[in-house]
Amino acid sequence: MFEEIITNVKKTTPLVECITNCVTINDCANALLACGAAPIMAEDINEIEEIVELSTAIALNIGTMGEQIQSMFLAGRTANRLNKPIVLDPVGAGASTLRTNTTLQMIDEISFTVIRGNVSEINTIAKGSGTTRGVEANVADKVTEKNLDEAIALYKNIAAKTGAVIAVSGAIDIVADANKAYVIRNGHPTMTKVTGTGCMLTTIIAAYCGANPTEPLKATAAAVCMMGLCGEIAFEKSEGTASFRTSLIDAISNMTATKLASGAKFEIR
Amino acid sequence: MFEEIITNVKKTTPLVECITNCVTINDCANALLACGAAPIMAEDINEIEEIVELSTAIALNIGTMGEQIQSMFLAGRTANRLNKPIVLDPVGAGASTLRTNTTLQMIDEISFTVIRGNVSEINTIAKGSGTTRGVEANVADKVTEKNLDEAIALYKNIAAKTGAVIAVSGAIDIVADANKAYVIRNGHPTMTKVTGTGCMLTTIIAAYCGANPTEPLKATAAAVCMMGLCGEIAFEKSEGTASFRTSLIDAISNMTATKLASGAKFEIR
Amino acid sequence: MFEEIITNVKKTTPLVECITNCVTINDCANALLACGAAPIMAEDINEIEEIVELSTAIALNIGTMGEQIQSMFLAGRTANRLNKPIVLDPVGAGASTLRTNTTLQMIDEISFTVIRGNVSEINTIAKGSGTTRGVEANVADKVTEKNLDEAIALYKNIAAKTGAVIAVSGAIDIVADANKAYVIRNGHPTMTKVTGTGCMLTTIIAAYCGANPTEPLKATAAAVCMMGLCGEIAFEKSEGTASFRTSLIDAISNMTATKLASGAKFEIR
Repeated sequence: MFEEIITNVKKTTPLVECITNCVTINDCANALLACGAAPIMAEDINEIEEIVELSTAIALNIGTMGEQIQSMFLAGRTANRLNKPIVLDPVGAGASTLRTNTTLQMIDEISFTVIRGNVSEINTIAKGSGTTRGVEANVADKVTEKNLDEAIALYKNIAAKTGAVIAVSGAIDIVADANKAYVIRNGHPTMTKVTGTGCMLTTIIAAYCGANPTEPLKATAAAVCMMGLCGEIAFEKSEGTASFRTSLIDAISNMTATKLASGAKFEIR
Repeated sequence: MFEEIITNVKKTTPLVECITNCVTINDCANALLACGAAPIMAEDINEIEEIVELSTAIALNIGTMGEQIQSMFLAGRTANRLNKPIVLDPVGAGASTLRTNTTLQMIDEISFTVIRGNVSEINTIAKGSGTTRGVEANVADKVTEKNLDEAIALYKNIAAKTGAVIAVSGAIDIVADANKAYVIRNGHPTMTKVTGTGCMLTTIIAAYCGANPTEPLKATAAAVCMMGLCGEIAFEKSEGTASFRTSLIDAISNMTATKLASGAKFEIR
Repeated sequence: MFEEIITNVKKTTPLVECITNCVTINDCANALLACGAAPIMAEDINEIEEIVELSTAIALNIGTMGEQIQSMFLAGRTANRLNKPIVLDPVGAGASTLRTNTTLQMIDEISFTVIRGNVSEINTIAKGSGTTRGVEANVADKVTEKNLDEAIALYKNIAAKTGAVIAVSGAIDIVADANKAYVIRNGHPTMTKVTGTGCMLTTIIAAYCGANPTEPLKATAAAVCMMGLCGEIAFEKSEGTASFRTSLIDAISNMTATKLASGAKFEIR
């Protein structure tokens, strides 16, 4: 199912411009290289337009905030103008007014191809800051087998309102556009004990969408399955959280279309 | 002795806000996750107050300087107002006028729970920039068995003057408040061949103090023993300095109250 | 041949001030420690002069741009005034107008001991922005056995014009001054699948030149051979790109004059 998606990445080496937090920026660059893409991590506002022009896809991650935010808005406008895939990771939306407002303003002004976050971050987008954005989020804390139907409906709704594929990370991952959702059961709990697994996934989604621009839903689902499968492999090989991180990126670098086909666990709803 | 300290960390998952240098910020976040805490690395001054309110404890590390410094002062004032444990790592105090002055000003304006540094950094605090702060530092370069009594007296003195627990890293570690000092003989020389072992320790001390707010001296001593013990374990498992770093964080993630109880090497003076 | 070079590094522990990009700054600090040097990564313009005075050598890497650039110019002027070895890594020169212009302005205003980059970056310097700087670059994409003579002539020419040793990384590495070139055949393709191998090499070159200030050409060639040899060793030990990175820094930390003597593959032209 995802064979062509992953093959296109390895065949075309998409160049992904990342404006991302300083905590996991190294992991993001290495994850991109590992998956077969090429990273640029330019953030100086004076070169953003030229770098976006060079790039195949863009990943914006608001983890650090500060001056990067203005560069992100410019990157977003440029990507939209040039019709390039662009992915948002609204890190910590809901944790501070600044993050919530920045996220909502970005979604207002930029048309994202994909928005990826955890349940709290995506719920913050669902609730919005005002009534016009309001979508009631009843999936309070996490997606479980019990509230799965409700969660799928919610994320399809956010996808419809934003025009973006919504990718929600958790014990169960959901990747949805307005009409269709992938429910993904790959992954391992140790992924939450290493910083940057979400950030890395965001940049890989950008790479997968860059190499498969007409299929953002499927490309995102493939990236989420791939990352989760690598988490499963990494757990088998590691002796603690730091070697888990090493094994995770090793697994990304060793992933093939065949391995992904046999390891991906998902259903379409 | 330290069982309850470490158990409280794992039971409560303290949220530690770090404003820290960009060199080792990833290691600090991963070290916090490994020890059972949760990291936030927010540094934008426009969200600092909200983030400190959310957090259990705060770690300030002046390694990078620049705009972070203003955020650190605001974080410090906010933490003091809300009575949250706050730890200072005065990286490079003594190496430049800017670092020395920033450190002394921070200690003047913020009431720290713990100050952790190497001998040179702590001696810089002891000497101060003016006569009012002056404490003669005769422990010139490092703590040895020969000058141990003198060193303990010095650090108890600095603890009395600053109101902070003083944690000094070296071949022999000392953790002191005004009345009591832990002399700790855990650790391995390879820890000096990897950047960030001190920075990681600082953030772990913040986590330990956050989970044990009434016992900062004991919590700090526990963190120092734990980190040193992990250095010993890492040396046995590694084949060079980079795998040492990996094994160090792995060991933190595998540490238990029982292992710490049997491996901690300290005396109280 | 390189025994004395590497022995001098390990004997003198050169202190290397790096102003470098936030993507690989941690790897650069750890690479310096691994090779026997000591890192400082200060970038606040208010302490640059004092830090350069303390340091043995300076490494400037323009990967992140932004405010670091002003600090780099000040570091460069200070290093020149104090006659300290200084190395430039013009990351992405040619990829944006900002990077190209910054690189050319730096080369105009600062006298570099070594300039290290990939073929595209060095070709950008060769072409310059105006006719006065123009050197025709016919080594378009990479150095091969076919265009090797032409490449050597080009890099000797750039060395003559800039007064710097020119180090060009690729499948075949070239290290040249105006009169003499080392053609180096160490290395492994996996080095291009990990971010930061070039940045680490730049900082190691600074360390090697700092410990061997009268022999920048030989010191640079030694560093390039050493790094390439470590890449070969790392490939044998690794199971993917992340463990390759770990093994690479492990190998640097285990490198000796004897191992380098037996593993270095170069000819002088």
